[in-house]
Amino acid sequence: MQKGEWLYLYHDEQTYFLPYEPGGCFSTHYGTLHFPENLEFGDRIETNKGVAFYVLRPSLADLMMKVKRRTTIIYPKEAGIILLELGIESGSRVIEIGSGSGSLTVLLSRIVGSEGRVYSFERRPEHQEMAIANVKKFGKPERVEFILKDPVAEGGFGIEGVDAVFVDIPTPWVIVPQVWQALRPGGHVGFLSPNIEQVQTTVKRLEETGFVRIRTMEVWTRGIRVKEFLTRPFDRMIGHTGYLFFAQKVSSPAPEYGPEYWI
Amino acid sequence: MQKGEWLYLYHDEQTYFLPYEPGGCFSTHYGTLHFPENLEFGDRIETNKGVAFYVLRPSLADLMMKVKRRTTIIYPKEAGIILLELGIESGSRVIEIGSGSGSLTVLLSRIVGSEGRVYSFERRPEHQEMAIANVKKFGKPERVEFILKDPVAEGGFGIEGVDAVFVDIPTPWVIVPQVWQALRPGGHVGFLSPNIEQVQTTVKRLEETGFVRIRTMEVWTRGIRVKEFLTRPFDRMIGHTGYLFFAQKVSSPAPEYGPEYWI
Amino acid sequence: MQKGEWLYLYHDEQTYFLPYEPGGCFSTHYGTLHFPENLEFGDRIETNKGVAFYVLRPSLADLMMKVKRRTTIIYPKEAGIILLELGIESGSRVIEIGSGSGSLTVLLSRIVGSEGRVYSFERRPEHQEMAIANVKKFGKPERVEFILKDPVAEGGFGIEGVDAVFVDIPTPWVIVPQVWQALRPGGHVGFLSPNIEQVQTTVKRLEETGFVRIRTMEVWTRGIRVKEFLTRPFDRMIGHTGYLFFAQKVSSPAPEYGPEYWI
Amino acid sequence: MQKGEWLYLYHDEQTYFLPYEPGGCFSTHYGTLHFPENLEFGDRIETNKGVAFYVLRPSLADLMMKVKRRTTIIYPKEAGIILLELGIESGSRVIEIGSGSGSLTVLLSRIVGSEGRVYSFERRPEHQEMAIANVKKFGKPERVEFILKDPVAEGGFGIEGVDAVFVDIPTPWVIVPQVWQALRPGGHVGFLSPNIEQVQTTVKRLEETGFVRIRTMEVWTRGIRVKEFLTRPFDRMIGHTGYLFFAQKVSSPAPEYGPEYWI
Repeated sequence: MQKGEWLYLYHDEQTYFLPYEPGGCFSTHYGTLHFPENLEFGDRIETNKGVAFYVLRPSLADLMMKVKRRTTIIYPKEAGIILLELGIESGSRVIEIGSGSGSLTVLLSRIVGSEGRVYSFERRPEHQEMAIANVKKFGKPERVEFILKDPVAEGGFGIEGVDAVFVDIPTPWVIVPQVWQALRPGGHVGFLSPNIEQVQTTVKRLEETGFVRIRTMEVWTRGIRVKEFLTRPFDRMIGHTGYLFFAQKVSSPAPEYGPEYWI
Repeated sequence: MQKGEWLYLYHDEQTYFLPYEPGGCFSTHYGTLHFPENLEFGDRIETNKGVAFYVLRPSLADLMMKVKRRTTIIYPKEAGIILLELGIESGSRVIEIGSGSGSLTVLLSRIVGSEGRVYSFERRPEHQEMAIANVKKFGKPERVEFILKDPVAEGGFGIEGVDAVFVDIPTPWVIVPQVWQALRPGGHVGFLSPNIEQVQTTVKRLEETGFVRIRTMEVWTRGIRVKEFLTRPFDRMIGHTGYLFFAQKVSSPAPEYGPEYWI
Repeated sequence: MQKGEWLYLYHDEQTYFLPYEPGGCFSTHYGTLHFPENLEFGDRIETNKGVAFYVLRPSLADLMMKVKRRTTIIYPKEAGIILLELGIESGSRVIEIGSGSGSLTVLLSRIVGSEGRVYSFERRPEHQEMAIANVKKFGKPERVEFILKDPVAEGGFGIEGVDAVFVDIPTPWVIVPQVWQALRPGGHVGFLSPNIEQVQTTVKRLEETGFVRIRTMEVWTRGIRVKEFLTRPFDRMIGHTGYLFFAQKVSSPAPEYGPEYWI
Repeated sequence: MQKGEWLYLYHDEQTYFLPYEPGGCFSTHYGTLHFPENLEFGDRIETNKGVAFYVLRPSLADLMMKVKRRTTIIYPKEAGIILLELGIESGSRVIEIGSGSGSLTVLLSRIVGSEGRVYSFERRPEHQEMAIANVKKFGKPERVEFILKDPVAEGGFGIEGVDAVFVDIPTPWVIVPQVWQALRPGGHVGFLSPNIEQVQTTVKRLEETGFVRIRTMEVWTRGIRVKEFLTRPFDRMIGHTGYLFFAQKVSSPAPEYGPEYWI
């Protein structure tokens, strides 16, 4: 492992997330850990009280969840669907608005690869700062352009022909024309909104503006404990984060079209 | 658009998925479509009966769902989580077993980028053939190595140090040692199994073999129709495709550890 | 068993629901069954082709699901919650509108007992006829008063002091004042509506009219196949039937109150 | 209202549950309430600080949730389904084991009416005491026989021909023969168990013992906040309380039968 690489310290009842400091030490509720010079992922180390911890590689989901937050973040359960429905892959050019705390930016920067590009828009400087810091820690900042701008008030995104746009702002309907302008023909837009009225209002605007194949969904995950004779789902789960909805840009509006059936 | 490029023909009540044939024609229930020489994504074309269709870019989810099938395929709702939990990004080296119909292979080949690599194992030649055909149509075949082999019977994968392994076979527990061998330290393994007994058996084997942070989950999505005064979730949804479970390789077994809490 | 009693004929792959006819016979895909004079619940009888059927008592859920239908019916998953949230028990006096096909009427008539009473309102004669026929077959018709009337157009229910009212009509908001009039103080009202706009509109009206403790919910059930090494939830489930919402009558309106938190 | 009657004090952010004491007073975070001699349900009363509370009738769901607890209780979402699948109505004779804290006993005693009967078995005296106290407060104790006994160790229930049995004990499989003995032919048994292994073990025993139409399910509810431009499901929900499973007694075992399909 290299100095500064992020590691996920795993003990059954407790986990920690920190950068590797060769020769450093770290205090836990279970005693103090000393990190050797040649620590490797997968290693098992013990505290001075004899409690074992494992040194694990964080997953993409871990990185997204560990960003420092000023705002609600995008969760992995939604982020996975967003990638697939927006067609974001190695080489994609993507706009995101707003940057928020940068949890989705971290993911996007790792998916689009060295040939892709993420344009992350935010109008509040303090959010942008935090997003930049998080992408520097957990993402690939060289693939991201952070732009401090309100595209509604300030004449649009100023970028054209992107493959996909993802919108997570409180009034998503106001930005629909700017999204249409920025997308390449047939391109994908996605939204995440907590309230149904946000969806209702934005869907109507999408239909009027030149988007088709509008579809809305919810995503749930439920954890399950697998243990001999105690196998059962966990008692509590997240019942709602937001409604996800998607559409595709067409050359001319199609107000006669309704939303697509979706299973 | 280029000849042979896949397009998603969209009409409210009907969609078609086909490669672009400049000057060609295509018959639908709503009449015949003629494709001009200079068709572009986003275009609106009409059948000889005056019914409008839109020419859309398929998303990654579309490509996965449109593979020809001999087997159950991996659905987008699970595939998104798989990427994030296994940490599959641009540049990753990934093993998948089995190839099945290649729906996940299509996705992986588009995510790992030109510097990544997918090793897709399958022991049944007829499945492999179909997976190869599907990746040629919808994926990036130059990034995939298709291997016809049963790693359990034939001495393991023969590849080491991969970032992640995804297992979708009927008896996932038998392949746990081979997966351990193939992964780099701290690397991620994921499974999708329809029956709880498959999970119970495999989790036990993982605990004995040198994996920690074992976690199991289900994923659901539900579509919602958004239409003025008729907004409501769709009546039917998929209640189960399979249990997703994940773990990470460590240098030494940790049988004393239980599965992690997950929300 | 008595002549005319309803029985549930159960064979693994096929079930039938019919009244008992001593000495009668019944043709199935698996051959013909002859019913002896002294048939009892729990008996096992065989067709002339040697296929075994079991003679079972229908549950309340069976009776509700077996009504002849002209309309969407209330399903057991919602009906159970309705009883508990409306406080419908032995001795209760309850209004239901509309009668629909009578599936809920069947249930209510069996719950309220000989000292309770169900007032079932319907404005379409053909629905009322079917509801009456279904309650005669599966319920306790002597406890139900069927009333052909539109309480909105025709001056209210004409009944006062009932314990609970259940509303299942397309425009539930129009009937809120009449419901308030019919309920005893502190009494419960429940609604089932498929579309969110119906809920939004009716909740607003409830707040203005003198109802508090307004709460809205969805209910899901998912079946699970339990079979050795094949235990798994069923693939498909009902994703939505309707939103259930409840409130309680107070003496004076409380527009300042918002809806209650509910887990 | 009569002295001692239970009332549900409702204020938007806070609720209380207590018996009515004419002339008494009650202190809340919002000040002190004085109860007049002639308090009625639906009344609005104010604390000395001017905060309004409404006096509401508790629903059956409220009564179940408000029992004092030593054990996990049965929740309304499951209790409703239990009534319908077991066919418990006015006049039913029902066995319940164990009494637990009596939340289900409260409900059953109110549903079976004056002609029905609940036999509530419990082997731990301290649980029985609490169940009795709760039924006295919230149920109809004159319809319930509380029996302190372990029917497995002590020769069965000693009661025969009941319409339905509900089992909520940690090892439900051990009591299957006793349940068979107690039920009338074609009668219904239901179980609630948190762990899948309990279900797997008990279903096997049911198949061997003379039960058919075995079916297993989960139930979820999710609350929704309905408020102008803020309408959305609540963030958190209960992901699991237990698996519900049901079967019917037949005269002879039917090991060849698998579990029924259920949607």
